[in-house]
Amino acid sequence: MQRLRSIVNDPDTRAGRTFALVIQSLILVSVISFSVETLPDLSSGARELLRWIEVVTVAIFTVEYLLRLIVAPNKLRYIFSFYGLVDLLAILPFYISSRVDLRAIRILRMLRLLRIFRIERLRLAMARYRDAFLRIRSELAIFLMVTLLLLYVSGIGIYYFENEAQPEVYQSIFHSLWWSVITLTTVGYGDMVPVTLGGRIFTFVILILGLGIVAVPTGLVASALSVSFHPEDDRPTG
Amino acid sequence: MQRLRSIVNDPDTRAGRTFALVIQSLILVSVISFSVETLPDLSSGARELLRWIEVVTVAIFTVEYLLRLIVAPNKLRYIFSFYGLVDLLAILPFYISSRVDLRAIRILRMLRLLRIFRIERLRLAMARYRDAFLRIRSELAIFLMVTLLLLYVSGIGIYYFENEAQPEVYQSIFHSLWWSVITLTTVGYGDMVPVTLGGRIFTFVILILGLGIVAVPTGLVASALSVSFHPEDDRPTG
Amino acid sequence: MQRLRSIVNDPDTRAGRTFALVIQSLILVSVISFSVETLPDLSSGARELLRWIEVVTVAIFTVEYLLRLIVAPNKLRYIFSFYGLVDLLAILPFYISSRVDLRAIRILRMLRLLRIFRIERLRLAMARYRDAFLRIRSELAIFLMVTLLLLYVSGIGIYYFENEAQPEVYQSIFHSLWWSVITLTTVGYGDMVPVTLGGRIFTFVILILGLGIVAVPTGLVASALSVSFHPEDDRPTG
Amino acid sequence: MQRLRSIVNDPDTRAGRTFALVIQSLILVSVISFSVETLPDLSSGARELLRWIEVVTVAIFTVEYLLRLIVAPNKLRYIFSFYGLVDLLAILPFYISSRVDLRAIRILRMLRLLRIFRIERLRLAMARYRDAFLRIRSELAIFLMVTLLLLYVSGIGIYYFENEAQPEVYQSIFHSLWWSVITLTTVGYGDMVPVTLGGRIFTFVILILGLGIVAVPTGLVASALSVSFHPEDDRPTG
Repeated sequence: MQRLRSIVNDPDTRAGRTFALVIQSLILVSVISFSVETLPDLSSGARELLRWIEVVTVAIFTVEYLLRLIVAPNKLRYIFSFYGLVDLLAILPFYISSRVDLRAIRILRMLRLLRIFRIERLRLAMARYRDAFLRIRSELAIFLMVTLLLLYVSGIGIYYFENEAQPEVYQSIFHSLWWSVITLTTVGYGDMVPVTLGGRIFTFVILILGLGIVAVPTGLVASALSVSFHPEDDRPTG
Repeated sequence: MQRLRSIVNDPDTRAGRTFALVIQSLILVSVISFSVETLPDLSSGARELLRWIEVVTVAIFTVEYLLRLIVAPNKLRYIFSFYGLVDLLAILPFYISSRVDLRAIRILRMLRLLRIFRIERLRLAMARYRDAFLRIRSELAIFLMVTLLLLYVSGIGIYYFENEAQPEVYQSIFHSLWWSVITLTTVGYGDMVPVTLGGRIFTFVILILGLGIVAVPTGLVASALSVSFHPEDDRPTG
Repeated sequence: MQRLRSIVNDPDTRAGRTFALVIQSLILVSVISFSVETLPDLSSGARELLRWIEVVTVAIFTVEYLLRLIVAPNKLRYIFSFYGLVDLLAILPFYISSRVDLRAIRILRMLRLLRIFRIERLRLAMARYRDAFLRIRSELAIFLMVTLLLLYVSGIGIYYFENEAQPEVYQSIFHSLWWSVITLTTVGYGDMVPVTLGGRIFTFVILILGLGIVAVPTGLVASALSVSFHPEDDRPTG
Repeated sequence: MQRLRSIVNDPDTRAGRTFALVIQSLILVSVISFSVETLPDLSSGARELLRWIEVVTVAIFTVEYLLRLIVAPNKLRYIFSFYGLVDLLAILPFYISSRVDLRAIRILRMLRLLRIFRIERLRLAMARYRDAFLRIRSELAIFLMVTLLLLYVSGIGIYYFENEAQPEVYQSIFHSLWWSVITLTTVGYGDMVPVTLGGRIFTFVILILGLGIVAVPTGLVASALSVSFHPEDDRPTG
């Protein structure tokens, strides 16, 4: 029993690592086969194969769920824990035959991949990320507010400059907001491009300001993480 | 009176937080309804609704303005303060019936959202941003000058390389400047693309230099902010 | 013999630098001529010239290989070392006449350029890079996992939003993944652009999260490298 | 004489600042009028005006040149100094009437704008930039080499994946290199887009690696600049 528990729950032992690896691989297989199903023009042979993969993975996941239930010291607590619910959600849609299409819920299986963060080394790194995030959360909140404001202001601005010249493209402030998002993140699809002189100069000014959209969070993350890497700096130097 | 003052002016008390939240939400509603008005093909029902939203918000903002005036120890000082003027600007256009279209001024209501920075925690974060900005303002000025120079030089360069091959696209140095801005910020709409060998090699060289356009301000912000997070580093270590 | 060895193997002496420079230039010539061969519509004169360049470079590389073999204290060890195998691979395809097209292997000659990192100054800088990389490898692993997850989730999401409106463009989750990659890296070719309201709002949310795709690794690299530049910070300050 | 010298050469005195400001503005006017000349369909009136602006600015620059010559303690040294040559180059083309088109040389007048870096505050900031650059020059050299290699490898790779499917677009490795540059810098014009499955997966892998193209120099700059801002860190802490 003790041995079974360590296999199922402790990815830092050898048997536990193997067990975790098998389950994680199966989740990946299941997630990929979910994607393959969306391919148009699948042959019926392929559909059959996908159906079989689904049956086998659900069977294994069910056995795994029962194992976890058995080794849990407190059964109810496991069932209603985050991972317990996710594990149940991963197999339940298969057993319930209903008219509602529950297949989409299958994708929540991906959440099971998060168990990987139970590995010691990753847990420490995650803790450093969390520390860094907490240290800069006020600054990030301000940054997000200013970014949203800048997006909105540039949407309004470009609407006034371009609406007359391209009424079909810059139809309303909401359409212009799409342009703001795609331009300020420097994605630049090219589906909406300013053509007036005013619109172009406005875009230039907005983009110079918008460089900060990349610079500020990067600078925040860099400085917050560098504290996590220099823990001695937090102690008084005297 | 003291109680009223704390509700209206102090977002760090409970009643003040509620008051601030209500007003801020109303500003958001008002700003969004402003955007909705620009949608083409609005039904008359929707237009009627938008009109009502405007009347109600202005009414509430007017009451709020009077409240602020009442609690202000120095009435004149409030009226001519930054927030006082913004508050007035938010309601005045509604009451003045004139031939000039004052609706656009309504958008200045957004400035009222800035009151959110009166919250203690955000005020501290803003102070850190300001500190970081002041520390690097000479460097930022140089960066901006060099960026503008690089934009201009690349505009001239691409004009000489591409003008002959695509006279309709690279019509003048000003048209080429639009290409510089969109390319060096890595937006890349694709409305102006170099096709000559010279133009492409030139673009390559400019882009390698242009990576600095993102790298330098980010590096500046990161190093300036990291000083703000390690205040003890400013003290002499001896 | 000692002298020959230092010429062939030590780029920090004067003769060795000259020798290394000549060989590196030849590798570059050989790599460039490899690219030129792919140009369509090459004249037969040009093809003849390229053939000659190939013959001459291989001849020199062969002499160089023999020299390296001669100066090596342990012949077998050199032959089966990384650089020994790369050196052999660079000339072997030329001498083997076979029906299999071995020309593509020629491009592996580029690996020989890596010998440049034997220079002292570059070796130190490489060590700093390696140090920085090792320091943040757990964090980078997490970052990579989260990025892949975000890419996958955004691929699924946009598929559900856009598949109905543009079945030809967003054909399956795999096609949508291409959109995820091109959008989240902010390349933004514009070959797949969301048009539905839901798809656009989803893109906006994903892009705001995706800014972290650039911010986090940069922040990691910056903080890891800054430790390499402040080695005294690693010592206890007490 | 002493007074004249301080006006002409010292932008940190009041008269010197005014003088510098006037000259710098004139350079800007001259540079902008140079750009305006490239506009197609200029009226003859505008052409006349541009000609007048040119005559006046050259006249003033000539007077300035003579003034600088007069106040220089060592005339020959000024003439052959960097700024002396730039100042001469800015006016000489105007006086030489020749069949060769010397107008393009006029653009070198922009170099005169660099005198702005004589201002004390900017000089200090420039020194910090230079310090930071020198500190990381080996790392930058490696970064540049790796970037060029990555660009080249991705050019070769995409050529093999896409050449067959789109022979008109990915014509040769050189054409593919243009794609590499535009994609890895995340500009993404959309003039060359991979369509094969292999090409897209290859692009994905290359882009994940390519995120480093932005992350590494930014990290380098950030860590180098942060040393410049913490000069006490360079002293031993013991």
